[in-house]
Amino acid sequence: MRILALTATLLLAGCANAPAEVAKAPAPPTAPLPAPTPAEAAKPPAQLQYLYGSPEAAVAVRATNARIADYGVWRVKQRPKDSVVLAPGATMDAPAFEPCGNKPFAAVFDADETLVWNLGPMRYFAEKGTAFDVKVWDQWEKTGAGKAVAMPGSVEMVNRLRAAGITVIANTNRSAANAKSSEDTLRAAGLGEFKHGETLFLMGDDADGSSKDGRRATIAAKYCVIILGGDQLGDFSQQFNVKDLPAAQRMALATSAAATALWDKGWFLFPNPVYGPWEKLGWGDVFPSDKNWEPK
Amino acid sequence: MRILALTATLLLAGCANAPAEVAKAPAPPTAPLPAPTPAEAAKPPAQLQYLYGSPEAAVAVRATNARIADYGVWRVKQRPKDSVVLAPGATMDAPAFEPCGNKPFAAVFDADETLVWNLGPMRYFAEKGTAFDVKVWDQWEKTGAGKAVAMPGSVEMVNRLRAAGITVIANTNRSAANAKSSEDTLRAAGLGEFKHGETLFLMGDDADGSSKDGRRATIAAKYCVIILGGDQLGDFSQQFNVKDLPAAQRMALATSAAATALWDKGWFLFPNPVYGPWEKLGWGDVFPSDKNWEPK
Repeated sequence: MRILALTATLLLAGCANAPAEVAKAPAPPTAPLPAPTPAEAAKPPAQLQYLYGSPEAAVAVRATNARIADYGVWRVKQRPKDSVVLAPGATMDAPAFEPCGNKPFAAVFDADETLVWNLGPMRYFAEKGTAFDVKVWDQWEKTGAGKAVAMPGSVEMVNRLRAAGITVIANTNRSAANAKSSEDTLRAAGLGEFKHGETLFLMGDDADGSSKDGRRATIAAKYCVIILGGDQLGDFSQQFNVKDLPAAQRMALATSAAATALWDKGWFLFPNPVYGPWEKLGWGDVFPSDKNWEPK
Repeated sequence: MRILALTATLLLAGCANAPAEVAKAPAPPTAPLPAPTPAEAAKPPAQLQYLYGSPEAAVAVRATNARIADYGVWRVKQRPKDSVVLAPGATMDAPAFEPCGNKPFAAVFDADETLVWNLGPMRYFAEKGTAFDVKVWDQWEKTGAGKAVAMPGSVEMVNRLRAAGITVIANTNRSAANAKSSEDTLRAAGLGEFKHGETLFLMGDDADGSSKDGRRATIAAKYCVIILGGDQLGDFSQQFNVKDLPAAQRMALATSAAATALWDKGWFLFPNPVYGPWEKLGWGDVFPSDKNWEPK
């Protein structure tokens, strides 16, 4: 699962360790993981049980979608001065935002584990005990329509936003080469119409690779973006994914006063313990040494 | 990790499969898990990386705490007619609540993975590759003060509630036998004073074992409970933990109209993919068969 998760991150998250060339190149051959023991294989890994199976996660996701819709419906009653998309070069230390002018409203979402759950390949990798495989993932992008499911409350959320006059846009690191099938996947999940280049932005649309900043700027040039939604910090700004950014600094940026002013107020984060840029964290990153404890 | 997590649930969550006697009895001897492979041991398990280490989880927890404090400060401006504690025998089909009368306000929280993160034993179990061990957990309850950490934003949350005149109460399945050290643990984490029998309720306080319903009723007899907070559904009502409740029914109850009216509006759920009652879910519970997919 370590290899699966880390590689999934590189592909889906556009994290610092994944330069665009790597994310787009065929995967290096990966050794299969040891076959799962019977005890392990009897049930899915804990993070999959929690996210895809538990009422606890379903409630959290549904509540996030409700907050997004409530916020959108409220927000458009005034005309915001600024988008919640950071202006080029702006940082959390000196935040500045793309101007709204009289542009129409939009809400911009990541797709994977933000609008849809990718049950097909996640089950496949876990059942086989195999590493993440970009060729399998590419097949999933091509053939997953009808098998990827809308997350709890996502259909209601996009419908409420659209009813309030807000254009719903997806900005994902799925490949531009599979644009048509990703449109099909979102439609088959009940999420409505997304059109490549208009309401669907994909990796390969520009020269920025897995960074979504350029695509966000393209969207914000045309829209007043009142909502960003995602499962990873790269769905809000690439500054969180700067190469070799130390874990403590990434944490400090994400919990800074400027970021805190945005969470739940324009920036909305979905839970995803299945894969993410946090997979590079070591024991010392996760467990501060001054909190070490052992039984006697 | 399967054994660890499931047993932790039995102990901490009061789930349907954990009659009080089992939860309180010494643990049956458990076979050690296979030693982790080097690849596995190089980093903590994914669910621990995510919850305890990631900015993504820190942001989600901090935002939940901010919502709780905002809600509490707003809610006390009116006098609610009812607590958010279900009346005895009330179900999500026919919800009815304990009356507020002129009682003082309270907010009631689970402790573990709701107010504090239990870094000590969770690291210990994962590093050793051992199963959850109730004797180790009991030592943690006795000696964890200063090692358990307040979750992101929890200190600010309890301080804001108290400043608004709301009594902060913990209702946890830690043992009544360790009351003093759990008081110490919460104080050392910066969460202030909790006093057993007044603002700290523990397993063993009544005859209900791991069910928190009786303790909730005891609290609601004295307080107008405007907030319940927890990481598992049993922190809101034992009806979610009825023995042998099918997974689909548990999901339906948690996402029913009556429950949805409470989530984020009195009932607040924290993310916890490390342990929980969802650990009994099998492949078919987590992945609906009509969504099965394989690459060609």
